[in-house]
Parts: sequence; C-alpha cells; structure tokens
Amino acid sequence: MKRLSCAVIGLGSMGLGMAKSCLAAGHETYGFDLSSDRVARFVDMGGKAGELGDIAKKLDVVMLVVLNAAQTEDVLAGETKLLENLRLGSVVIGCATVSPEFARDMERRCKAVGVDYLDAPISGGAGKAADGRLSIMASGSPRAFEIAGPILDATAETVFHLGDKAGPGSAMKAVNQLLAGVHIAAMAEAITFGMTQGVAPDQFLDVISQCAGTSWMLENRAPHVVDGDYEPRSSVTIWPKDLGIVLDIAHASGFDAPITAAALARYEKAIAMGLGSEDDAALAKVYAHETGLDLPGKAA
Amino acid sequence: MKRLSCAVIGLGSMGLGMAKSCLAAGHETYGFDLSSDRVARFVDMGGKAGELGDIAKKLDVVMLVVLNAAQTEDVLAGETKLLENLRLGSVVIGCATVSPEFARDMERRCKAVGVDYLDAPISGGAGKAADGRLSIMASGSPRAFEIAGPILDATAETVFHLGDKAGPGSAMKAVNQLLAGVHIAAMAEAITFGMTQGVAPDQFLDVISQCAGTSWMLENRAPHVVDGDYEPRSSVTIWPKDLGIVLDIAHASGFDAPITAAALARYEKAIAMGLGSEDDAALAKVYAHETGLDLPGKAA
Repeated sequence: MKRLSCAVIGLGSMGLGMAKSCLAAGHETYGFDLSSDRVARFVDMGGKAGELGDIAKKLDVVMLVVLNAAQTEDVLAGETKLLENLRLGSVVIGCATVSPEFARDMERRCKAVGVDYLDAPISGGAGKAADGRLSIMASGSPRAFEIAGPILDATAETVFHLGDKAGPGSAMKAVNQLLAGVHIAAMAEAITFGMTQGVAPDQFLDVISQCAGTSWMLENRAPHVVDGDYEPRSSVTIWPKDLGIVLDIAHASGFDAPITAAALARYEKAIAMGLGSEDDAALAKVYAHETGLDLPGKAA
Repeated sequence: MKRLSCAVIGLGSMGLGMAKSCLAAGHETYGFDLSSDRVARFVDMGGKAGELGDIAKKLDVVMLVVLNAAQTEDVLAGETKLLENLRLGSVVIGCATVSPEFARDMERRCKAVGVDYLDAPISGGAGKAADGRLSIMASGSPRAFEIAGPILDATAETVFHLGDKAGPGSAMKAVNQLLAGVHIAAMAEAITFGMTQGVAPDQFLDVISQCAGTSWMLENRAPHVVDGDYEPRSSVTIWPKDLGIVLDIAHASGFDAPITAAALARYEKAIAMGLGSEDDAALAKVYAHETGLDLPGKAA
C-alpha cells in the first residue's frame, strides 16, 4: 500500500476517528483543530501537528471534517488560505454535509489551483469513524478517487462511487439525512405515543424492531430512550443544520417537503427547550414534556 | 396437534391467506365474505362455506379479518348476531386495526356471553399471510391464548404476547402503523427529493438501503417506485384509516403527533388525486406531480 502524507482538519468525534484510522493504516497523518486540547489528544495517539501553512505543501490528501459549508469555505479560503498553499496534484476530500451546489463550487475552485476535489460526505457515526468503518458517499474525478483511494480504504467500510464530478455525493447525503432526521423524530413520536397507550419503551423496542415499523435509526436510537441515556453520540444540534440544508436545496428546486419540515420543527423545539447538546434521542423529551409523561431515567 | 373448527370472516388478501394457512395446518376452516367470488375462491382451495348463523355453534375459533372497528362491530352484533350464536367457551380473534378502547369493549361484550376475545392485530402483508408467516401483536386472557394457540401457530411466524387483557395488542399495532405510515411517506418524499438533485430512484435504493436512512418500509416499497409498479400489495386507502385511528387515540390522550399528521395529509392528497386503490408507494406520485418529475414507468 502506498504511504501517503495526509491531514485531517476538524478533530471532532468523526474527524478524530478518521485521523486515527489513517494513522493505523500507516499514513503520515497531521491533525488540526481550533481546540488545542483535541490536537494534543491526537498527538498522544501518535499523530502529528504543526502549522498548516508550512505543512500544506507536502500533503497528498487533505480531509475537511468540519461542521458545514461555512467552515469548509473558511478552511480553504479563509485566513490559512489552504487552497493557495496546497501542492499541485493533491486532493481535497470534503466530508461536511453541504449542498451539491457548494460542492460543485469547491470542485471548480480547487481545479483552478491544480487540486482535485472529492465530494465525500460521511455516514455511520463516531463508533464507525473510530473503527475505520464509515460509509462514504463519494463523487469526483477518477484522479481524485485514485489519489484518495488509500485514505478511503483506511477510513471506510463502504465507498459509494456516485459519479465523476462533485455534487452527487452531497445530494445523496442530503437524501440520507432527510430520512435519518425524519426517522429519529418518528421514533420519538411513536415511543411516547406508545407510552400514552400503555406500551412501555422497552416493550416498544422489543416488538417494533421486529415489525414493519422499524428503521435503522429506531434500532440505533430507541435504546437511548429505553436506557434514559442522552450522552450525545450525535447531538440534537446536528439536525436543524442538516434538515435546514435539505429544505434549502428542496426550496431552490421548487420541492415541497412537508414531512421533513414537520421533523425540523420538532428539533427546533428541542433546542428551544435547552436540549441542543444532548443525544438526538432526546427528541422524545419534547413529546414527554408536552404530554406530561415520565421517560425512563438513567440507571444509577 | 389439536384439529380445530374455525372460521375466517373477511377473505381479503390478509384473510384469505390466513384461511389458507389454517386449512394447510389441517383445521376445519370456513370462509365468509360479502363477496361470493372470494368465498368461491376459498372453496376452490378446499375451504368450507355456509350460513354463518348455522355454523357458528360448532366453531372453536372465529377470526375477524375485516377492515376496521365498524365492520368488526357489524359482524359480531349486526344482522348475523354472531356473538349470540357462538358456542360457550369459543374464542374470537380480532385482527382489524382498532383502538385499544374498542378492543377492551369487545372483550367485555364477548365475556358477557361466555366467549374469550383475543386482541390480535396482524402485520406482515399479503405475502406473509399466504405463507402463514404473519406477525401477530396479541393480548388477551390465558384461556384465549390457549384455545387460539393452534390457529396462531398456523398463521403466524411471530406472536407477541403483550398482556393478559385486550388493549395492548391494538395499542402496539397503532404504534407500528404510525411508524410504517410515516416511513412510507418519508420514502416517497426522499426518493423524489433525490430526483430533483440528480439521484436516480435505483441509485437511491442501492445506496440508502445500506445507510442510516433506511427503514423496513423503504426497502419494501422503494422497489415499487423503481419498477414503476403500483399494483396494490397494500393500498393507499389503508393509511387515512390507520393513521386516522392513531390520531384519534392520540387526541383522546392529549398527545400531539405532528409528523403523523403531516404524513396523513400526504395520503389524503394521494386519494384526492385518484390514487386510492394503487399501491401505497404511489405516494411518490404526489411529490412527482407537485414538482413535475417523471417517475420510472412500468417495464413493458
């Protein structure tokens, strides 16, 4: 396997896991984050750190594992001017959830300075990120796929090849987020509705997970409600952002998405209730609060 | 195994399948339906027919596989007065989707004439009904479970024992229908939203079914959209009924279910567009119509 020099920008739960996976695969891996604590944690794992401006020139691949389009933009064209400093022929992997239009724009701007762009949103959560077992919804030039190949291999279990230019990767991610966000909200609505009818949350999980009403998100998140455990694996705040992107794109295409809009309103209410930093399963608390239900508490 | 004498009332796709499964298991099985064609079809399969008033006295078990509470009520207490004619100690299995309160009322009225009632809504679709592989969400007296046991064995792959009185079976079914109905509508919203972003329906199915956005309903119904095949396995008309029951129960408990309400509005629009008798995957046509998308057509 070719040993690459790579950097992960953004060492949150997803980025740190991806950086670890790159290290484990033998790549020279630099980590960057606004939080020096996070960088220090990565260095403790054997990762490298430094000044991005100095290091950029030697990188084969840069992964942007930041929150959104604004942060992606800021890293590439803001103060650090990463785009100007990257080596000709290197590849930028954009992992944030962004609009397909933004991804196409990034590809154009990278191309203008001789850099390939891979539109490559990620899915799977922090656990799979740490294990190098993400799903990556990727589109971009054959050259971008070729150069980035060893990094994709190191971080992902499944790489979907969705086309030879930027856009489809982000489009598929938006579709996935629409469904994932609606399914979490539907789980929260159903598990609390069940409680009003005498169905206990653990019975809900046991039965519905074996029935036609199940979803990946239900099986993943309902256990958090059953256990009363709202430590954030993925927090409520993600969803107004991601469903907002979905609705922005939808609106621009004249597409009405009323179920997504109904789900978004639930996440916004959760944030108004001060639940933003909790696990997104805390959406059940919105319904419980409205109806006066007692959700299971955390086991001592 | 004990050979029982049983009747299935309502020989639609679910009832006919269940009646066939009872026959196959060696039970003496009578079939009843308002449509004489359906009864004739069952007789061709080896089933029995006759006058319900005459036959009621010899039955061990009666399954009511009708559309809703009104039809259940009509069969038991309407012109045929089934309840008055049933043998002391026989068991009525109520399979329609009804409110828990209605199920409790049926149990009371059966008990008053010495008959046990099993609150036993079914799930799984026509295919599983035909194969004797349904899921049954059942609650009722131990005696109801005992007498009905051989019939449950003949028709179901999974029987959930949800308690020793009527109510929990119907409550769990309502929870399942909430989720199933929302998930079909979310699939329709997502697959057409994807099309506006250049994601083809077959690509949607390939990728999302492997991602966190998947659901049982998505994997079951999205292929209908991909194939342009709207022959009804389960029709649009089911959902205003079932989601209406969910919202009625929710309302009676002071529970606000905005995502369910948003999904219900989509089914109502589908019916207003004349799609009521099509497969419920035809909900995608509502979105396609609104946005001017061309869904895949049926292969010639």
